[in-house]
Amino acid sequence: MSEKTWAAVATDVKYTEIQELDLPYIESDAGILKIEIVGVCGTDVSYYRNLKEPMILGHHVIGRIYKIGDSASKRWGVKAGDRVAMEEYIPCGQCTSCRSGFYRLCPDTNPSLGGIRYGATPMSVNPALYGGFSQYMYLHPNAVIHKLPDHVPSVEAALILPLSNGFEWMRIIGDVGPGDVVVIQGPGQQGLACALAAKAAGAETVIVTGRNSSQKRLELARELGADYTVNTSSEDLSKRVAEITNGKMADLVIDVTSGGTQPVISSLEVAKTRGTVLLGALKNQLFHEFDLDIIYNKTLTIKGVRGHSYQSVQMAVEFVSSGKFPLSIMNSHNYKLSDTDLALRTAGGEGEPFPLLVTVSPWL
Amino acid sequence: MSEKTWAAVATDVKYTEIQELDLPYIESDAGILKIEIVGVCGTDVSYYRNLKEPMILGHHVIGRIYKIGDSASKRWGVKAGDRVAMEEYIPCGQCTSCRSGFYRLCPDTNPSLGGIRYGATPMSVNPALYGGFSQYMYLHPNAVIHKLPDHVPSVEAALILPLSNGFEWMRIIGDVGPGDVVVIQGPGQQGLACALAAKAAGAETVIVTGRNSSQKRLELARELGADYTVNTSSEDLSKRVAEITNGKMADLVIDVTSGGTQPVISSLEVAKTRGTVLLGALKNQLFHEFDLDIIYNKTLTIKGVRGHSYQSVQMAVEFVSSGKFPLSIMNSHNYKLSDTDLALRTAGGEGEPFPLLVTVSPWL
Amino acid sequence: MSEKTWAAVATDVKYTEIQELDLPYIESDAGILKIEIVGVCGTDVSYYRNLKEPMILGHHVIGRIYKIGDSASKRWGVKAGDRVAMEEYIPCGQCTSCRSGFYRLCPDTNPSLGGIRYGATPMSVNPALYGGFSQYMYLHPNAVIHKLPDHVPSVEAALILPLSNGFEWMRIIGDVGPGDVVVIQGPGQQGLACALAAKAAGAETVIVTGRNSSQKRLELARELGADYTVNTSSEDLSKRVAEITNGKMADLVIDVTSGGTQPVISSLEVAKTRGTVLLGALKNQLFHEFDLDIIYNKTLTIKGVRGHSYQSVQMAVEFVSSGKFPLSIMNSHNYKLSDTDLALRTAGGEGEPFPLLVTVSPWL
Amino acid sequence: MSEKTWAAVATDVKYTEIQELDLPYIESDAGILKIEIVGVCGTDVSYYRNLKEPMILGHHVIGRIYKIGDSASKRWGVKAGDRVAMEEYIPCGQCTSCRSGFYRLCPDTNPSLGGIRYGATPMSVNPALYGGFSQYMYLHPNAVIHKLPDHVPSVEAALILPLSNGFEWMRIIGDVGPGDVVVIQGPGQQGLACALAAKAAGAETVIVTGRNSSQKRLELARELGADYTVNTSSEDLSKRVAEITNGKMADLVIDVTSGGTQPVISSLEVAKTRGTVLLGALKNQLFHEFDLDIIYNKTLTIKGVRGHSYQSVQMAVEFVSSGKFPLSIMNSHNYKLSDTDLALRTAGGEGEPFPLLVTVSPWL
Repeated sequence: MSEKTWAAVATDVKYTEIQELDLPYIESDAGILKIEIVGVCGTDVSYYRNLKEPMILGHHVIGRIYKIGDSASKRWGVKAGDRVAMEEYIPCGQCTSCRSGFYRLCPDTNPSLGGIRYGATPMSVNPALYGGFSQYMYLHPNAVIHKLPDHVPSVEAALILPLSNGFEWMRIIGDVGPGDVVVIQGPGQQGLACALAAKAAGAETVIVTGRNSSQKRLELARELGADYTVNTSSEDLSKRVAEITNGKMADLVIDVTSGGTQPVISSLEVAKTRGTVLLGALKNQLFHEFDLDIIYNKTLTIKGVRGHSYQSVQMAVEFVSSGKFPLSIMNSHNYKLSDTDLALRTAGGEGEPFPLLVTVSPWL
Repeated sequence: MSEKTWAAVATDVKYTEIQELDLPYIESDAGILKIEIVGVCGTDVSYYRNLKEPMILGHHVIGRIYKIGDSASKRWGVKAGDRVAMEEYIPCGQCTSCRSGFYRLCPDTNPSLGGIRYGATPMSVNPALYGGFSQYMYLHPNAVIHKLPDHVPSVEAALILPLSNGFEWMRIIGDVGPGDVVVIQGPGQQGLACALAAKAAGAETVIVTGRNSSQKRLELARELGADYTVNTSSEDLSKRVAEITNGKMADLVIDVTSGGTQPVISSLEVAKTRGTVLLGALKNQLFHEFDLDIIYNKTLTIKGVRGHSYQSVQMAVEFVSSGKFPLSIMNSHNYKLSDTDLALRTAGGEGEPFPLLVTVSPWL
Repeated sequence: MSEKTWAAVATDVKYTEIQELDLPYIESDAGILKIEIVGVCGTDVSYYRNLKEPMILGHHVIGRIYKIGDSASKRWGVKAGDRVAMEEYIPCGQCTSCRSGFYRLCPDTNPSLGGIRYGATPMSVNPALYGGFSQYMYLHPNAVIHKLPDHVPSVEAALILPLSNGFEWMRIIGDVGPGDVVVIQGPGQQGLACALAAKAAGAETVIVTGRNSSQKRLELARELGADYTVNTSSEDLSKRVAEITNGKMADLVIDVTSGGTQPVISSLEVAKTRGTVLLGALKNQLFHEFDLDIIYNKTLTIKGVRGHSYQSVQMAVEFVSSGKFPLSIMNSHNYKLSDTDLALRTAGGEGEPFPLLVTVSPWL
Repeated sequence: MSEKTWAAVATDVKYTEIQELDLPYIESDAGILKIEIVGVCGTDVSYYRNLKEPMILGHHVIGRIYKIGDSASKRWGVKAGDRVAMEEYIPCGQCTSCRSGFYRLCPDTNPSLGGIRYGATPMSVNPALYGGFSQYMYLHPNAVIHKLPDHVPSVEAALILPLSNGFEWMRIIGDVGPGDVVVIQGPGQQGLACALAAKAAGAETVIVTGRNSSQKRLELARELGADYTVNTSSEDLSKRVAEITNGKMADLVIDVTSGGTQPVISSLEVAKTRGTVLLGALKNQLFHEFDLDIIYNKTLTIKGVRGHSYQSVQMAVEFVSSGKFPLSIMNSHNYKLSDTDLALRTAGGEGEPFPLLVTVSPWL
């Protein structure tokens, strides 16, 4: 008789159901993870609200190797019992993107191209256990796995993937370092991760912006190390950045606000001549009366940024392992597996108030 | 009695007048250039049409050192009789921009900040001889000078500054090299220079676009080495680029068209995922219904590009010195100094037809 | 009854034997290549001379897909009948090196770490057909495959892997471009490939060096586009480079000579201040009285370079596909499969004279 | 009657003499600095011991603008009374090196090429006041000046130039950032500055090495933030680095030891595959039995590093201004101007014991 796992299967729009599922038989190149904690991401909320097929959501997954084949053990450099942080990607490893170090662009891991990834794979794909809201998860032969030291607190470990984006965008793409002025628009999980990564990379001045509704998060940004916060509902951002920097303005600006075109426009304004503006979020709306000449006049660089690389996840693992930053203060809401619906609603702003970080633990 | 020079002084809007002017006394750190040829630039036309103060226009200047002080000779590494190509910039050499290798951003060389540069300095600034439409030009202590071999034909030498932009944008900023697909929107002097520089840097495929009105220039682009040209008045650019590249699309796109927002939009379309789009011209108009999400979705890089560096001018000097490209076919109209007005009108599209390259030689 | 292939199996030191072998059954993620031509590499000669176990040598392999599984077809983007160029590497795709774009460092493809690669895998590893001196070769699920147009002549296609090293070292690592002076020490296959790649990337001046014994190859270097050659048996290299470059010296120098410490020392000498010296060959001997302070005094960069990346092989494929360079003049000796021993001896300098490029075609 | 200054003029080998000198008349493009403190550098000691001509030594200079011409004020962006940190370089601003952002290579600022710089210019060059061991110093039109906030303690400000080297080598050249392992060989002023800069840039692990004789400095390194120190007189460095990094070894290694070839050899050993080794000090001796193949085998990058850029000095200014590191603990010996000889002997290891940082203040 095979072993079982409980999982919170999203079976309908905005609805999960605890189901008992079989653990699969494992080939030499695969494994099974015993889940320790899973962070809830905005993408999970989006899938939850627009569910097309039953699936197990959740992809910021931390756990321990429960079973592992010999070949997988060798490739991934881990053995049963090891604690690991998972990436959401399941890339083929053999296509042009994979061969070039950009596996996050591999079609095999892009659900909209028929690929699969953790937290976004239908139950119809065997062995179904492709999501973190569960006690166990399948380790696909193409999974991307990072070893994690035992001493890192669970809730800090759950931040590894958001932090990976922060390191990818701030350090690897943005090349932030000592002396730099960085403006981060949007104090959500991505924005706070960027603030942490920018400070960790030596940024001189980190300024986080938010509106009236996000004052609690701006406060948290300051506790996490941001040098300044600006309330864009009441303050003139350009003026504030000019004051703070003695007119130097920002070397790097990132827009990770969920909505509106205004943050993009103010990002272009506060960037210095030869500065860089990163676009880290879809706007889903058209720009009207948009003056593109500012890019030419200030010879700005604008870059769209999405996802992380092996290197940036590794930076995030080492960052949380170092214990240098007070990450635990980001933890606000931890739920048990049987409360996955509440966790998802809270992360989406429809559940308990002030969701800074929402996690689910595999208890019923 | 001091020596004299004839110069075509722009004294009023769209009007130059031949004047006899004194050659200045030269300190140890300065010099005088005997002009050989000067290329007419779009910027000259713009100053000509909107003249605020009398000045000598012309800044794509080739000549020979006529007089030079000891200190200048040592600094610039040239002596009397040497043939040189001039940059238009007269940067201080001591400010933050100058100290960082970006002297093109030095306030001292920006006329709109009260600075001076060749071809854009009022007669009231001593010793007045700051323009190329003249027999002699003042070599300011802060002039930027490149030695030029004797064998280079004058009309090819007159292309050095446009080519410098081409090398700066294609090679130094765009990092074009073997295997790359480059799309150049706009077959003017800048676009053709970009095409030459991209091919010189090893680009696999160079595609130049233009409208019905610029078919002669597209033909010239092909003669200069462009692999394909596309008439955007009648062809679908995205479809053509997809055909030409087997769906790979463009690694680098540059918009150097003088007008319209459409070329920017099609540039974003033909760039591949992780591709780069350079904006090399002011649009002077707002974008309506602009979809910025394409930058995020394809993780594009957009960059404003302006002017050249010491390195790119040096590349251009070596390029014309190599004689590898049939640059002389770009020459279409050479005028004598007393025809400077006609030269400027032709370059502006109001004189003789099909101005591909307009030059002025210092003969009366 | 299974299909068969003839292969020249290296069964003893300096000895190959034609054997008839079975073609394997192919899973969904693998395939079989029908070989068209294989270039002989110095590494093949080295294995041939020091054979430890029976194996099929040969890894510069060009052929057509003979059989292919569905999954492999999708991953590699090729189908039966397609012409392809093979890399020698068979990397796992899942380890840290693979995930970072450096699959050439994957332990799975390093024979000295127990890994396998084409041309260096014992017959005892199933299905044995891991070498190019054969009519058919096994396409392992982890093979790295590049599509190749039909019009490229076979002997030019056989140069793709050496050219890949040239593009990796000159363009990707050395960043060669317009205006650069490049000195290439050693006119063997690697050196000539570097010369071609440097010119393709726009190098202004390419200087290839060799000794008395390699005058024929220096001549070939000039025919392939090198601007200068220097006979280091009779000429002072530093003096010659100074003359050629007007004292500027070399931006980039590479040592791909097979022996001796002198080329390294002269490479450091001819590099300009802030120049780069690439070390592309093992010396297998110690340096005596070595003055390292030249690296500090001229703030040089020294880099060891080995192998190629996906990007550089792609550049090489596009380079040979463009037909821009007279590559066919490199072809000197083509052998049939039953003459594999002669081919290997010739490539090693013990067979027919002046081996510039040695290839084997799958005829008996 | 002109104003006067006291200065400690080095008039003979290992001998300075307090002299009263005239302050010069200042043109529009120059100025005079009132000195606040000057740090003693190893270069000062070297000049002191090998004096060829009388000169005022000292070039790590902090002070306030005492007089300044209008033109200089505009270029440098400072006015009388402003506090500034000086670079030692006095570059022309107009040569190829200056135009390319590498003014530290300008011949005008290289004494061995007949140039001048602070702390290394004979009294015979007008107006003689080119050194920091004085009450006032001449601000040459080509001086490189950085504004400094008032709140920075003098002794910390005196560290700006050594820290600039640290930032240049660790961040700008070495690209140190989050996750990196850095080994610094030699705990002198340069080594400690590298340790500080590496940590400021986010290095995960900084390991500083020294011999028995430098245990006090290793202790200081730990207080300044180094994660580990290794006594190379008694410990096996490779073994220690392997232990500390779990076999990962070092991303970046720098040798700033004053003597011996062994640190270079161990640097190559502890660098990881694809790692970088910086050579930051002259060895002044030949290497015997040197195995260069390690560079090829591990595809290492070796770079000579010397001096700083405008950007790195600016990083150092912002670093000391931030007050984030306990720099004041580096201060060990402060002398008055009349004790300049003792200061120089101490810095050279011949005066008071344990010189970690030696400074001179302009009091008699």
